[in-house]
Amino acid sequence: MTHKINKLTIIGVGLMGGSLAQALKKQNYVKEIVGFSRDENKLKIAKNMGAIDSYSNNLLQAVQGADVIVIATPVASFEALLTQINPVLSKQTLITDVGSVKGSVMALAQQVLGNKAHQFIGGHPIAGVEKSGVEASVNNLFESKKVILTPKKDNTASAITTIKNMWQAVGAVVVEMSAQQHDDILSSTSHLPHILAFGLMDYLSNQTDDVYQYAAGGFKDFSRIASSDATMWRDICLNNKTAILKDIKAYQLNLDKISKLIELNDSQSLFELFQKSKKDRDNYLISLHK
Amino acid sequence: MTHKINKLTIIGVGLMGGSLAQALKKQNYVKEIVGFSRDENKLKIAKNMGAIDSYSNNLLQAVQGADVIVIATPVASFEALLTQINPVLSKQTLITDVGSVKGSVMALAQQVLGNKAHQFIGGHPIAGVEKSGVEASVNNLFESKKVILTPKKDNTASAITTIKNMWQAVGAVVVEMSAQQHDDILSSTSHLPHILAFGLMDYLSNQTDDVYQYAAGGFKDFSRIASSDATMWRDICLNNKTAILKDIKAYQLNLDKISKLIELNDSQSLFELFQKSKKDRDNYLISLHK
Repeated sequence: MTHKINKLTIIGVGLMGGSLAQALKKQNYVKEIVGFSRDENKLKIAKNMGAIDSYSNNLLQAVQGADVIVIATPVASFEALLTQINPVLSKQTLITDVGSVKGSVMALAQQVLGNKAHQFIGGHPIAGVEKSGVEASVNNLFESKKVILTPKKDNTASAITTIKNMWQAVGAVVVEMSAQQHDDILSSTSHLPHILAFGLMDYLSNQTDDVYQYAAGGFKDFSRIASSDATMWRDICLNNKTAILKDIKAYQLNLDKISKLIELNDSQSLFELFQKSKKDRDNYLISLHK
Repeated sequence: MTHKINKLTIIGVGLMGGSLAQALKKQNYVKEIVGFSRDENKLKIAKNMGAIDSYSNNLLQAVQGADVIVIATPVASFEALLTQINPVLSKQTLITDVGSVKGSVMALAQQVLGNKAHQFIGGHPIAGVEKSGVEASVNNLFESKKVILTPKKDNTASAITTIKNMWQAVGAVVVEMSAQQHDDILSSTSHLPHILAFGLMDYLSNQTDDVYQYAAGGFKDFSRIASSDATMWRDICLNNKTAILKDIKAYQLNLDKISKLIELNDSQSLFELFQKSKKDRDNYLISLHK
């Protein structure tokens, strides 16, 4: 049996990188997976877990001769990484990433990689959990999960296919769209909800009473995403500013609308809004199990 | 072994009423539990589940001779129920409720029951789930859960103790506070989050893309409370208007603050806000398991 990829380097062996490595190993899809991290301890754990075959904490050594490089570090680190990799990047190597924002990442790749930018295919697996770290990585994280690729005109069809096949091999459903569309959609379904949850915790911390002891079961789930990594969410906010600011503003107007209904005792409209929301949420839940 | 309560009538055998009845039965705390509902089918289910000993769909018959009446129907029904019960209410009978708002309920009891209002002890078990109906009721719903009682000056110490002991018997932790304090706290920890979740579903329904298919795991939990009962939440909004409107307004100002940080690229303050929120949420989670 032949491997589909000879050498793959994962930059950043956290939850995403570690899980992708484990899943590819399980499928026997890659001959050699090399891990890179600034933290040798993480590399050792990843090696012991069987996620990677070897590792290096020297970036240029780690990427040397790689057919595919997967960047799975926080978005804020991309510029430095791409800048360092660029001089040694062979024409055969493809680079992809798992960053939660795509517009700024695609622009950065263009700017840093220049005439090699066509070797970069942006990606984002929608498979986040609030946990992080290689210890939390699993070999089935991407099964039945969406992976959004944001190819540009200069990416070759074969380059896109290579990245697409890799994700499909670990069970993901690959969807292609523009970086702009990705950022607009994710702002609504992911970035806005996270900001609402972080914002609620921040708001409650200013209350005089110790209100948490009177929080019910629903609060635990509602606030779960506020346990997400602060660095990652700071980076997302700064890298998807326009869409996020637009969504916050529009959401506030929606809250104005609800406030108005309460103020006017508009019982019927309130009921209809809640009923419609409940139905939408119930339907969303059903769609998950289809 | 003697029963602590001879006859107890539960008005409304849904999730709350059914679960309280089951829990009291399990503790053998009440000699006879009578169920009342307008829907005889629900009464039959409750009887088959062993939650109630007998039932009636005649309200006055159901409450006759009861030592304790527990009102476990939507808050909007309280006025009609109390008005009907009042003429036949004996001086020995205590009434309590499980309504999610307390200020308006206490005022209503005062207004409708007049010189019998001291027999009404307001209560609110903080044990909601997004499910509803007697079929979802369980005998351990209140174990280790907070039950807030909102006694007034004219409630006798022995009346308060009777209701308190009943809740403690089913494993609840009883806390006393004013109706006003209850409504202020619950507005922040429960009413506001529900409105944020309903509001998010409403906001997303106006998006052009079918955004739900790109919602990640966190969205499922965040939106769970938007699957709550629309009638109940309409009633809560209308019955705790002042506190809820104040919380929505203040929360919007908090979103303004976050928007401003994003707009100004204030990386450090954003990180600190998210980090503090994450810590608060993690601490809240730890407190649940203490």
